[in-house]
Amino acid sequence: MRNHWLGSSVALAALAGLCASAAAATQSPAEQAIEYRHSVYHVIAWNVTPMAAAVRGKAPYDPAAFAYHANRVALLASMLLEGFPYNSYVAGKTHAKPEVWSNRAAFEDLLKKLESRSATLAEVAKSGDLEKIKPAFNDLAQTCADCHKQFREKLED
Amino acid sequence: MRNHWLGSSVALAALAGLCASAAAATQSPAEQAIEYRHSVYHVIAWNVTPMAAAVRGKAPYDPAAFAYHANRVALLASMLLEGFPYNSYVAGKTHAKPEVWSNRAAFEDLLKKLESRSATLAEVAKSGDLEKIKPAFNDLAQTCADCHKQFREKLED
Repeated sequence: MRNHWLGSSVALAALAGLCASAAAATQSPAEQAIEYRHSVYHVIAWNVTPMAAAVRGKAPYDPAAFAYHANRVALLASMLLEGFPYNSYVAGKTHAKPEVWSNRAAFEDLLKKLESRSATLAEVAKSGDLEKIKPAFNDLAQTCADCHKQFREKLED
Repeated sequence: MRNHWLGSSVALAALAGLCASAAAATQSPAEQAIEYRHSVYHVIAWNVTPMAAAVRGKAPYDPAAFAYHANRVALLASMLLEGFPYNSYVAGKTHAKPEVWSNRAAFEDLLKKLESRSATLAEVAKSGDLEKIKPAFNDLAQTCADCHKQFREKLED
């Protein structure tokens, strides 16, 4: 009996070629992990930027939009750890310091703090009370800063 | 009274500079949107790749891992639309065809189909029954292929 699924190899081939980056096929597993974690950070930044503007008073505070972004960041924070497998340090291709791997427990503690603080912000954001949201956002921002200070190379520009 | 929050401008500045890509400050809004959507697609691909391997029999089927990835893709699929705002076509910097904007209803229909099919896959994946999962995965793959055929420039490599 012909398996219906086996007949769909065309779709699968399309998926493999099209959903994934065309470059992925030539990337090492370490480079793939680097691209993955950079991507997660970019998507986090996309969501953090409008929240920071609202908290700073640089943009109007829209409670629904803020809660939406806070929820996204909470989901995304939990995706970071798998982007730092062992052997994914490639000098010149990552801003991660070797300490991410040599001081692993401290790094994972900070990622866990990022997860818990982003979850707290998402929860507090539901209240729509900007005065409660600000300190929760600040706690999250501080965690970003702490982790970057300890585990990320300084960026030049 | 000194606002506790105002005292945390250092942390906020750190966040703005460190959570976001250093390049973001010099990017146009269109370029930021392009980087955002590329990032979401990369994170989707990261999760689709091991599912495709399991479905094809190229890797062992791990029900928990599969359900985890399927859930991630369902979350990520809903993040794509905001990555295609109007005026975010920049020739040479995006693989999106101009039809994404000129044939908007069809594009949004396909994104909605991606969302619903990835949600279905995440639901079916909970069963741990690979024979039920395969057609759901195939439906999702077909949606990727359909959208890429219609709305994405052919990649050279």
